[in-house]
Amino acid sequence: MRFFIAALLCNLLWMPAAGLAEAEIVTPKMRQTAEKLAATALQDTTAYDLVESLTTEIGPRLAGTEAEARARDWAVKKLKQLGFKNVRIEPFEVPLWQRGVEKAEITSPFPQPLYITTLGGSVATPPEGVEGDLVSFPSLAALQAVRAGSLRGKIVFVDQVMTRTQDGSGYGVAVQKRRETAFAAHKAGAVGALIRSVGTSSHRFAHTGQMKAITDTSVGPSVPSAALSAPDADQLARALSRDEPLRLRLTLTPQTQARAPSGNVIAEIPGRERPDEIVLIGAHLDSWDQGTGAVDDGAGVGIVTGAAKVIMDNLRRAPKRTIRVVYFGAEEVGLVGAKAYAEAHSRELENHIVGTESDFGADKIWRFDTRIAEAKLPVAKAIGDVLLPLGIGPGNNEASGGPDMKYVREAGVPVVTLLQNGWDYFDLHHTPNDTLDKIDPAKLAQNVAAYAAFVYLVAEMDEDFRE
Amino acid sequence: MRFFIAALLCNLLWMPAAGLAEAEIVTPKMRQTAEKLAATALQDTTAYDLVESLTTEIGPRLAGTEAEARARDWAVKKLKQLGFKNVRIEPFEVPLWQRGVEKAEITSPFPQPLYITTLGGSVATPPEGVEGDLVSFPSLAALQAVRAGSLRGKIVFVDQVMTRTQDGSGYGVAVQKRRETAFAAHKAGAVGALIRSVGTSSHRFAHTGQMKAITDTSVGPSVPSAALSAPDADQLARALSRDEPLRLRLTLTPQTQARAPSGNVIAEIPGRERPDEIVLIGAHLDSWDQGTGAVDDGAGVGIVTGAAKVIMDNLRRAPKRTIRVVYFGAEEVGLVGAKAYAEAHSRELENHIVGTESDFGADKIWRFDTRIAEAKLPVAKAIGDVLLPLGIGPGNNEASGGPDMKYVREAGVPVVTLLQNGWDYFDLHHTPNDTLDKIDPAKLAQNVAAYAAFVYLVAEMDEDFRE
Repeated sequence: MRFFIAALLCNLLWMPAAGLAEAEIVTPKMRQTAEKLAATALQDTTAYDLVESLTTEIGPRLAGTEAEARARDWAVKKLKQLGFKNVRIEPFEVPLWQRGVEKAEITSPFPQPLYITTLGGSVATPPEGVEGDLVSFPSLAALQAVRAGSLRGKIVFVDQVMTRTQDGSGYGVAVQKRRETAFAAHKAGAVGALIRSVGTSSHRFAHTGQMKAITDTSVGPSVPSAALSAPDADQLARALSRDEPLRLRLTLTPQTQARAPSGNVIAEIPGRERPDEIVLIGAHLDSWDQGTGAVDDGAGVGIVTGAAKVIMDNLRRAPKRTIRVVYFGAEEVGLVGAKAYAEAHSRELENHIVGTESDFGADKIWRFDTRIAEAKLPVAKAIGDVLLPLGIGPGNNEASGGPDMKYVREAGVPVVTLLQNGWDYFDLHHTPNDTLDKIDPAKLAQNVAAYAAFVYLVAEMDEDFRE
Repeated sequence: MRFFIAALLCNLLWMPAAGLAEAEIVTPKMRQTAEKLAATALQDTTAYDLVESLTTEIGPRLAGTEAEARARDWAVKKLKQLGFKNVRIEPFEVPLWQRGVEKAEITSPFPQPLYITTLGGSVATPPEGVEGDLVSFPSLAALQAVRAGSLRGKIVFVDQVMTRTQDGSGYGVAVQKRRETAFAAHKAGAVGALIRSVGTSSHRFAHTGQMKAITDTSVGPSVPSAALSAPDADQLARALSRDEPLRLRLTLTPQTQARAPSGNVIAEIPGRERPDEIVLIGAHLDSWDQGTGAVDDGAGVGIVTGAAKVIMDNLRRAPKRTIRVVYFGAEEVGLVGAKAYAEAHSRELENHIVGTESDFGADKIWRFDTRIAEAKLPVAKAIGDVLLPLGIGPGNNEASGGPDMKYVREAGVPVVTLLQNGWDYFDLHHTPNDTLDKIDPAKLAQNVAAYAAFVYLVAEMDEDFRE
């Protein structure tokens, strides 16, 4: 029991392990510099200016579109203007899926239109749509449990509610229905599928999002599928409670093109002593097609760039290690840019000291999570102490690092997550409401400050996060 | 000066005038009955059940459509089931305007779509749309001041912000731009017009609404016109700040049909002593086409009906005067039902003791306004005292009575407004977001309680509100 409490305290307090004194990891001078950079970042408007420019001058930038290409050109120009080195595009290809007509209506007994959005990757209905009786399921699991072919001619509706959480954990649960419903509905013999939006909003916008990754060729056949806004899902639930068969018509005419250009945009602050060692900070440049991608993920683009810019402009000499800023392409449709990056840089990954992506909105960072060697938790503790005055507390050692860190993380690169407050994030997420006015410049600046301090410390210290 | 202060006090405190003692206007027994009715109303669910039924089983019900006709049939059935007498439809005709395609996009230099909604009564563009450089005006007045023909080929944008107010007074100012912009733009030679939505929201839905009344044949020529959501208006303002010509394409294909059926639905609780004397309580049955008309004005339908129902079911005998519930048709397109009512009942109007409409949402009533003879303010004071425990304070003597009271008020019928808190009302108003989940049953019940007390007192008392 005493051992247990001691272990708990050790974990909670990140007590330095033997042989790694905090003051050796982050020297008083380094701490002072990090604090100065954070203070400067709180006053710097680079991040906000970038989001403003990107969302205004480009707007929506769906993976594989001409708009995403314009965004890459915009990025190269901006990163060069800001003074970064080695600015380049690393191109790759991605299938291009684009929404067409999207219409749903109750045809009987209460004729009325419904507000929906086609799910990314959905197949199309015939131009005149499909019509069928609606069958509701309280969960994806309930749909998956029905006998194959038993819903012939029906339209299925998975009416599962997402939980609002600060750490975004509700999403991981809810997103399964977005990924799987169209396939389960096909197995059951249905002609179409609707889900209650993966989101926490009460407005009338449905939340879009990708089904399986657009590059996943292993997936089986599926039916046309769309998300309903929360009020429309409520409406269907009420209409179904009348105990009359509810008939719907669903018309979705998205189109897919096998190959379209995408790419990652990269910029660097070369390290002064160990340029081969890389501190990777990323965000994604693409967005869904209905908002202007301000919160998802223009904010991230602004934050990581703003942080690197503050480091670049306010130090006499560059940090020891290279700071690499990556704007990933084609994140929304299935981490296509993340995979391309991990492949293109596979030989370099062992020299990636740490990776992190800002892709969870624009609210304040409240927690510092890591996924690093247990033995190196004292290093995280030393950094975490510098972040505390920004209102950021210690977290766990199970960080994802952000969506686009998936492949580098799986390849062994240590990652951290500077976790933002996600309480309101899924009110906007993947809806037309994701626009610049939803970003609070002061909260954005807190993010920049945290990234600036973190990135500087890791780029300047001698320690790393591996065994 | 002393006279002024005395007059002010008299006005503020509604001090009884000579000869009209409060206890004679509202006897202690009447007050007790009114309080009991209010208490019962706070527990009664008739109002919410009606809104739930109307918004679910009918949904949107634009004036002149088949859906509005279904709503009238729904109303007749419900009112009879509830036990009202003399339930009938008074039919009239209305032009039918229906939206078609509505698309706006920046074509240069920042191609991207914009979120708009066609204004009710707008003329159509050619099917391929109109394209022109955007010219922004800070106000309707600024647009009206330009030289005739000086904006040939342009698309105009009136970027005037609406003020959020509790009493709704911001709307009266802002709505002028919705009514007048398309006509002023035509005079200036423009090919299309956009306005910042008449609304206070920050979501991405534009607010629709009628231009001039659909029955107004005196209006001059106009251009196709639409409202932008607030974030889109902000986006245009930012895009214009880049000092490059901003080119837009606008495609609107609404259609108008000269005549379609509409009607008012009427139900009564006949008075036991003076059945010819009428206490008129109304709401409107039609709605805009994009929401389900929950807050505008399903709530009003529920409130006035629920109040009358509580009176009908909880008194041993009906009140002395007739209580008449009117569901007006075709309110949104220009008070067509209100005019039809005033014309059909012109001979009866002198026997209308008072009129009031609930058409300002579903939030709590906070103020009791009147428009009655000065000499009868003590009667209002006596009633207002009974409303005070519901959190309703005294207001002014300049009430409109609600939109559909316009013509009966102009014909001399005294009116009152049980004024709801409108702070959030214009976040939802005339958008798809106007759905049932936006109604708080407890707040709705406070409205029913206030109406029940007010209507009972006026129907039972011997006083009236005329000189």
